[in-house]
Amino acid sequence: MNDTSRIKHTSLAARVMPAGQAASLIHDGMVVGASGFTRSGDSKAVLAAFAQKAENDHTRITLMTGASLGQGTDGALATAGAIAMRLPFQSDPVMRTIINEGKLAYIDENLSETAAHIRNGFLPPIDIAIVEAASVEADGSIVPTTSVGNSAIFVQQARQVIVEINQAVPVEIQGIHDVFLPEDPTGRAILPITDVWQRIGQDVITCDPQKIAAIVFTNQKDSPAETTSGNAAAEAIAGHLLQFFNREIAVGRLTPALRPIQAGIGKIADAVLGGLAQGDFQHLTMYSEVLQDSTFQLMDSGKMDFASGSSMTLSTECYQRVFADFENYRHKIVLRPQDITNAAEVIQRLGIIAINTALECDIYGNVNSSHIAGSQIVNGIGGSADFAQNSYLSIFVTESVTKGGKISRIVPMVTHVDHSEHDVDVIVTEQGLADLRGLSPRQKAETILEHCVHPDYHEELSGYFERACRRGGHTPHLLEEAFRLHTSLAETGSMKTPLLASI
Amino acid sequence: MNDTSRIKHTSLAARVMPAGQAASLIHDGMVVGASGFTRSGDSKAVLAAFAQKAENDHTRITLMTGASLGQGTDGALATAGAIAMRLPFQSDPVMRTIINEGKLAYIDENLSETAAHIRNGFLPPIDIAIVEAASVEADGSIVPTTSVGNSAIFVQQARQVIVEINQAVPVEIQGIHDVFLPEDPTGRAILPITDVWQRIGQDVITCDPQKIAAIVFTNQKDSPAETTSGNAAAEAIAGHLLQFFNREIAVGRLTPALRPIQAGIGKIADAVLGGLAQGDFQHLTMYSEVLQDSTFQLMDSGKMDFASGSSMTLSTECYQRVFADFENYRHKIVLRPQDITNAAEVIQRLGIIAINTALECDIYGNVNSSHIAGSQIVNGIGGSADFAQNSYLSIFVTESVTKGGKISRIVPMVTHVDHSEHDVDVIVTEQGLADLRGLSPRQKAETILEHCVHPDYHEELSGYFERACRRGGHTPHLLEEAFRLHTSLAETGSMKTPLLASI
Ligand SMILES: CC(C)(COP(=O)(O)OP(=O)(O)OC[C@H]1O[C@@H](n2cnc3c(N)ncnc32)[C@H](O)[C@@H]1OP(=O)(O)O)[C@@H](O)C(=O)NCCC(=O)NCCS
Ligand SMILES: CC(C)(COP(=O)(O)OP(=O)(O)OC[C@H]1O[C@@H](n2cnc3c(N)ncnc32)[C@H](O)[C@@H]1OP(=O)(O)O)[C@@H](O)C(=O)NCCC(=O)NCCS
Repeated sequence: MNDTSRIKHTSLAARVMPAGQAASLIHDGMVVGASGFTRSGDSKAVLAAFAQKAENDHTRITLMTGASLGQGTDGALATAGAIAMRLPFQSDPVMRTIINEGKLAYIDENLSETAAHIRNGFLPPIDIAIVEAASVEADGSIVPTTSVGNSAIFVQQARQVIVEINQAVPVEIQGIHDVFLPEDPTGRAILPITDVWQRIGQDVITCDPQKIAAIVFTNQKDSPAETTSGNAAAEAIAGHLLQFFNREIAVGRLTPALRPIQAGIGKIADAVLGGLAQGDFQHLTMYSEVLQDSTFQLMDSGKMDFASGSSMTLSTECYQRVFADFENYRHKIVLRPQDITNAAEVIQRLGIIAINTALECDIYGNVNSSHIAGSQIVNGIGGSADFAQNSYLSIFVTESVTKGGKISRIVPMVTHVDHSEHDVDVIVTEQGLADLRGLSPRQKAETILEHCVHPDYHEELSGYFERACRRGGHTPHLLEEAFRLHTSLAETGSMKTPLLASI
Repeated sequence: MNDTSRIKHTSLAARVMPAGQAASLIHDGMVVGASGFTRSGDSKAVLAAFAQKAENDHTRITLMTGASLGQGTDGALATAGAIAMRLPFQSDPVMRTIINEGKLAYIDENLSETAAHIRNGFLPPIDIAIVEAASVEADGSIVPTTSVGNSAIFVQQARQVIVEINQAVPVEIQGIHDVFLPEDPTGRAILPITDVWQRIGQDVITCDPQKIAAIVFTNQKDSPAETTSGNAAAEAIAGHLLQFFNREIAVGRLTPALRPIQAGIGKIADAVLGGLAQGDFQHLTMYSEVLQDSTFQLMDSGKMDFASGSSMTLSTECYQRVFADFENYRHKIVLRPQDITNAAEVIQRLGIIAINTALECDIYGNVNSSHIAGSQIVNGIGGSADFAQNSYLSIFVTESVTKGGKISRIVPMVTHVDHSEHDVDVIVTEQGLADLRGLSPRQKAETILEHCVHPDYHEELSGYFERACRRGGHTPHLLEEAFRLHTSLAETGSMKTPLLASI
């Protein structure tokens, strides 16, 4: 049953149609901007219907979103060959494979940048916006659901708008969004956020009702977040970080409120944030992208006062708990556009503690978050560089090894650099924590070798470092063997081959 | 003759002393913060006297500055073994060698970050500030000379201050500085700069006169900038950029005023800026670090209205011309602290066009600005990442080859990443210009191969790219040969060895 009371602009009720009909508005070569951020608040019906249509008529589009979509939508679209270009982030295993095959042009962008690139005309103009909504207001304004992402800029710039009203989202969600569109195009407005809770915009996305070409009703929850429990490595990492924060408090650089926290995606970062519940912290806040289960656990335990993000991506259990008692949470959260959550200006001003996950780190503190063997993309850079570059403290977490120990995640030289040593203050593995602040490259290497490396790889990596130092340089490397661990992995299935018997 | 009228605080006249005596205030293990930015406004007497003292008594200190020093001071200090740690930038050939030998710990930092790291306690507290001044005001405030750099934060944080009054600098320089110290330490103030000319601070560095332990008189000009003329590659690069800007104006993304320009150090960047005099531009402005000869040439030709920087680094000829007619220029320039000139917030808000020099670029658009063969540092990252990350348009310029063609500056994979592909919009060599905006990594490679590579290396590099694509990946690489050009250079003295006969 379509709850038409969710459409307060009366004449728009006439534009309600099935998803398939709305999808037929999307033609070959179009540029589509769709809502959705870390699988939340994404299009659940129209993009799926479009994937089906494209399988038959070979329509291909450019698809921009906030970040990753749920529901397997990216995979279905990629399989259908419906996507010529995709940006700025995806995390779908099927789409990833097709990207790595070179069949789909993927622009893996800093999440803060897409809105500016659209405004500046660095990206093609948007034909159609598809936005999930809780309701449409009397003036055509759109009430978003569990994410804001790039929805506001898409609606502002698109010629036509398709709204998906998701009845699975309670209308009470209205009010948790803070939508601000910077001025345009000659320079940007000051973003006057000086506290995580501060609102600077509206609680809806303004939309000219004339542009709304279709309204589709859905009734489907967001794809739930995957939860991890009992991960020993994550617990060890959380333990090291807790100790580190306690030392920082003891020397007076931090207080028990720490600073506003950003926590990235990946199993470890969420577990680490959950681990803060074990510490003597008070009045914690978040200024992050994704509000995860751990955010609400910290609120429930009374340790966290407020969280700002661009989406809520929760497990089924946490989602139910939060929406069953929404009045208890609504004044503790705000969802913003991703060019505000990830704005350099605000991240610097608030003095964020950023915690992101690395695929691999090198002995000098450079971090690869995106490419296996320098070539195969996993997800993309996402917002990690926005935060790493501008935070008060940029922390990267990772297990020291993966694949049963056959791969060391600390290597002589990373095969792809997403975050240079200048943007990495602390590296934590289950082995320990390396505090890299105020160190030169050689000192960083000594610290990382001492604290972060798995014992199985210690001799190998410190041997490399010593021999490189003998050759010299500010950041000593032996180019002819900088990737020998990686090529050995490719040849033998393990980095453990005894390479350096000759030392 | 010491012009004591430059000391307006009367009782401070008693603290005038020779440089050697002032240098004796510097003890082993101390942390010294000295003025100086790109060889301008640096300590000319006390640091030199300290180098002499250290040669005898083996005193070693941590030395922080704005950026590079002139007068061979860094070289003399390094030779004397007087420096245990140096940050955030240097460009002295002697000091560079000692750094690369691993005998001096160098923290090559983003120029925007040092002030924050001092405030946050990530760097050791400053014992002594040494600041070049034009005069000392009645309340002890210091009037800087040709640079501001980190002088204000050094004076604020130091226990003792040594002032070098340089009589070679006219007292009329007072008024061109705008000194703003952000609030501290819980987060930062809004930096309310919305136009290049806007002033937000004071024209002096506030200083408690009690802290002024010594005043030394000097009479010595800044080390002059090296000028280049008739560099064919630089002229070709300037020509490609001019065409590019004209196209951007034609499609409406830019106006003839362009946007505020930042131009980095290095021969090419200055020449390129000079090249703008050939175009139909009007009302140009700069929001940069270093005001160079080209800045004043553009003002003289009526094309540039205003320039904001942290220092003026001029040739002898230009220096004389500017100071002979200073009233003509004083309202067209402002010098600010480097955490303001390089602030992400302001750079983003103003929508800067950033032009910096690369040592090498790779086919995917990653840039190395600092390390030869991934190991040997040349200067450091300087402010290049502050601008590349936050600019409206991030341009990197470089000759396509160096050392008589034996080295290609476009390579399969850079040996050190200072700027990831996310922060590089345009690459220009004398061969042509690659516009990388809105492209995926493989598309970037095609564009760079088509426009930027020297013909002698085209087959080599496109062969690498094709074979890598056959193996697959979002950013296809062959790790076992990603650095073969570099290892061939090390072995044979040239990258030109026929490597790929097998294709
Ligand atoms: C880096 C990132 C992929 C880590 O996520 P994660 O879920 O913790 O990843 P894992 O450690 O489980 O690794 C994922 C897979 O890659 C493999 N892997 C990890 N490191 C590897 C390495 N160095 N070499 C080869 N494979 C590696 C793992 O074995 C695992 O394989 P599996 O799926 O077959 O088990 C993820 O955090 C990410 O995409 N980050 C970039 C974006 C970002 O940081 N966003 C935050 C702000 S939005
Ligand atoms: C990158 C940078 C060193 C280029 O400066 P430049 O004066 O144009 O340098 P050149 O092209 O002349 O190169 C300097 C030397 O390195 C050599 N060189 C350049 N590229 C090389 C490469 N890829 N491999 C090996 N040697 C190389 C040159 O041959 C030259 O050698 P020489 O001194 O023996 O002639 C300089 O711009 C820099 O330090 N940048 C980083 C800081 C920065 O960008 N600041 C701007 C904002 S502050």
